[in-house]
Amino acid sequence: MIGSRNNQRLKTVRSLLERGSAREKLDAFVIEGIKLYGEAPKERLLEVYVSASFHASYPEIEAEVVSDPVFERLSDVKTPQGILAVAKRSFADPAELMKSRLLIVLEGIQDPGNLGTILRTGEGAGVGGIIMDAETADPFSPKTVRSSMGSIFRVPFCRLKETLSLAERLKSAGYTLYAADARSEKSVSFEKLPFTEKSAVFIGNEAKGLKKETLEKADVRVHIPMKGQLESLNAAVAAALIMYKASADLTDLKESVE
Amino acid sequence: MIGSRNNQRLKTVRSLLERGSAREKLDAFVIEGIKLYGEAPKERLLEVYVSASFHASYPEIEAEVVSDPVFERLSDVKTPQGILAVAKRSFADPAELMKSRLLIVLEGIQDPGNLGTILRTGEGAGVGGIIMDAETADPFSPKTVRSSMGSIFRVPFCRLKETLSLAERLKSAGYTLYAADARSEKSVSFEKLPFTEKSAVFIGNEAKGLKKETLEKADVRVHIPMKGQLESLNAAVAAALIMYKASADLTDLKESVE
Repeated sequence: MIGSRNNQRLKTVRSLLERGSAREKLDAFVIEGIKLYGEAPKERLLEVYVSASFHASYPEIEAEVVSDPVFERLSDVKTPQGILAVAKRSFADPAELMKSRLLIVLEGIQDPGNLGTILRTGEGAGVGGIIMDAETADPFSPKTVRSSMGSIFRVPFCRLKETLSLAERLKSAGYTLYAADARSEKSVSFEKLPFTEKSAVFIGNEAKGLKKETLEKADVRVHIPMKGQLESLNAAVAAALIMYKASADLTDLKESVE
Repeated sequence: MIGSRNNQRLKTVRSLLERGSAREKLDAFVIEGIKLYGEAPKERLLEVYVSASFHASYPEIEAEVVSDPVFERLSDVKTPQGILAVAKRSFADPAELMKSRLLIVLEGIQDPGNLGTILRTGEGAGVGGIIMDAETADPFSPKTVRSSMGSIFRVPFCRLKETLSLAERLKSAGYTLYAADARSEKSVSFEKLPFTEKSAVFIGNEAKGLKKETLEKADVRVHIPMKGQLESLNAAVAAALIMYKASADLTDLKESVE
């Protein structure tokens, strides 16, 4: 049983919880709680840690046992369930993602909770993949992993250094490029717009939206109509509305072809 | 200038930030930041506090000045902007809300961030009002107010002790009752469903959904189709998808009548 916070392996776990650089260097991240542990593909798990009390209730789970007080300080959450694991990071191959009918491209989504919710909703809407630029929050941060509710293991996603050359690649691959743009007069309401076969939807930073260059490369600009005096919707809500509409349009297309 | 944390008025501000019971007793809540201060109707503001540095930059704002270190400890946020205010709570009259075409009824929404996002999206979707039961989080908690992005002052809402007798009242008032229900075989996809004139949509707790009694009183059960292995969507995302669909259906209805 590990009974000291100075244990070298626990220090590594803390660094994976706290720092993106550590996650990058070790190509690993931390998941917490019994539900996420159960949802993680077993081949992705590198190490499992449980508290002494958890171990007493679930002796069948093979894990390193940590004393209760040390586990509590190790954990990233207010009320630890007593189990956490180090898992291997995994990114999809962008070329593979580009075979799907509906792609989401994120530019500079900053809030980890928003990013996790986008992953979660993306799975629900059935998007084929999510491509993030380097300015988007780390998908493997504890808060993103938590708010993804397990989708982190199921939605194919990748990170690219930048997304501008991606626009060209997507066009060559036959995609229509949609840019979420709340500000422009030129943009069309998502409700009126038909999303067509092979759609790539670009969604930008919470405060600044998409980069000018990205907007210029888009085939269609799309917005969500707002009543009242609201300036913007929450980024994860806006992404959800667009993803579900695009997914429904593509399903209708498929049905009309069959 | 207030230079001590033990100042009685600042203690009251802290209690309003920390405790729902204090907000109830004093019928007041706290808003923070220059944006929310600007959006608050002036007649709702009871007291305004600024930090010494903020005061130096904006001497025209009439406020009680607080020393920088004391202000920092007073604030509820990590990087205080230097202005906060005590505002009067305000609830809409349920009878007034029941004149609107689209009502949202919340049962036991627990997460303050979700509640704030629902208020924000509700304004954007143009719902006529939001009715919350007593088990829903306090709409005037700092986190809900922040995530509402000013909608707390603009979307009409009220709280009721319980929402069961409300269902009867809504039916008598001519509403069709829709219940968000991810679990039942009987529920219809929100995409296929036409929301009709005078819709009241009930949305339940993040984990448990709506109460059995509420589900039984509903005219229509509605769900959001999910692909993948997802168990549920984020409550604010689910509410957003339903609110926007209902609002679009009602707008179409209006256009076809005109």
